[in-house]
Amino acid sequence: MSERNIKIILEYDGGRYDGWQRQGNTDRTIQGKLENILEKMTGYPVEIHGSGRTDAGVHAKGQTANFRLPAGAGSWTEEEIMDYMNRYLPDDIAVLSAAEVPLKFHSRLNASSKIYRYRIETAKKASVFERRYLYVLGKKLDVAKMEQAASFLTGTHDFKAFSSVKRTKKSTIRTIESISIEKRGTIVEIVFTGNGFLYNMVRIISGTLIEAGTGDREPDSVCEVLRSGKRELAGFTAPPEGLILEKVLYN
Amino acid sequence: MSERNIKIILEYDGGRYDGWQRQGNTDRTIQGKLENILEKMTGYPVEIHGSGRTDAGVHAKGQTANFRLPAGAGSWTEEEIMDYMNRYLPDDIAVLSAAEVPLKFHSRLNASSKIYRYRIETAKKASVFERRYLYVLGKKLDVAKMEQAASFLTGTHDFKAFSSVKRTKKSTIRTIESISIEKRGTIVEIVFTGNGFLYNMVRIISGTLIEAGTGDREPDSVCEVLRSGKRELAGFTAPPEGLILEKVLYN
Repeated sequence: MSERNIKIILEYDGGRYDGWQRQGNTDRTIQGKLENILEKMTGYPVEIHGSGRTDAGVHAKGQTANFRLPAGAGSWTEEEIMDYMNRYLPDDIAVLSAAEVPLKFHSRLNASSKIYRYRIETAKKASVFERRYLYVLGKKLDVAKMEQAASFLTGTHDFKAFSSVKRTKKSTIRTIESISIEKRGTIVEIVFTGNGFLYNMVRIISGTLIEAGTGDREPDSVCEVLRSGKRELAGFTAPPEGLILEKVLYN
Repeated sequence: MSERNIKIILEYDGGRYDGWQRQGNTDRTIQGKLENILEKMTGYPVEIHGSGRTDAGVHAKGQTANFRLPAGAGSWTEEEIMDYMNRYLPDDIAVLSAAEVPLKFHSRLNASSKIYRYRIETAKKASVFERRYLYVLGKKLDVAKMEQAASFLTGTHDFKAFSSVKRTKKSTIRTIESISIEKRGTIVEIVFTGNGFLYNMVRIISGTLIEAGTGDREPDSVCEVLRSGKRELAGFTAPPEGLILEKVLYN
């Protein structure tokens, strides 16, 4: 068999991990866990490409990644690949699907948009069954004010003020297709759809919208923050446990 | 203020605990955790009565309990009681409500029925977000066969064969009002409603119904097991992580 390109969709509870990106030989990253298993499975070192890096503590319900199965790795069916990986992965990482795709497919470069969900518990205590996948704010949120603040951020803008990127020559312009705010009981969820997000961008926007919702900031101030490009004018970086990479879309 | 009787509804993730019932001075029981906090709150030793004991590892979404707030404990409102307890409880135990009830109310003696849910993942791997609250069977289940087996168990019977009670003079007759089997994607859930359950009864019935569902046992065999009164003829004790005490009903 010749070399094949395999696309997988993954789910993980990021609570125990130092994020997606492999760091040396550590086994505390999602990428590291996956690559170690793929090496065991194929007998070759395999590099896995994620659609993007998730930070330490951030979860995923639909992270997408791809890797090359070397020509000499044997004839694995898609189902066998998924079953093998799931058998050796810990129970906080799961492969939801595996499919052979054209060799030119790249999970990051070909992603057309991503959906992130930030979940906030406004009650003083989270449901014990959801507690790991929520940020417990413990205060009421004015959803209308959050929506008003969010309205300044949709569209194409320079999001420099809403990122933790160090000085860089790379563009900080991104497009947010939509930010919608959903209420489910005492939980408020902010759903972001966009073509790419800067480092910490979803968490900083979430923190800023939370400040608008609690009344700690005027919704209008967001417009000014955007224009200023100054990180210190934006809100706090909302904690990772509330964030879930929901889905990666491809055309 | 005179002595008051407080009813609370509780949620817990039983994963870390040795079950409901206090064991000496250990802090690894739900009852122990609650009583320690109530003693701190009131300045008096307080005994808390649960509607029933849950085993080590079993979860609850609607456990009900009551305790006496001593006359000298100060004037706590229902909300203050709930907030105080939630502040000091770990994040895997939560008080959902607290209400003053007549002094004669007893959460166990007055319970008219209880609802338990046993959750089974038939896929090879559980969703990472649900993994702690499911039994991962990893095999297909024939729901119709499970329903057929369950039909022999509803009504009033001597459930001795379906319990781990040691020789006792107490009655092993109980009434199961209903057993319904629900399918949600790859998850099969068995919902029990009854007026009381013997030690390990829900888990042994669940194990027996699982055996009927996988084809390891004829659904009809359940009738025989019931008549025999022999524990060794019933199925395995399904593991605790799949079991949730859903609700306790009072007339």
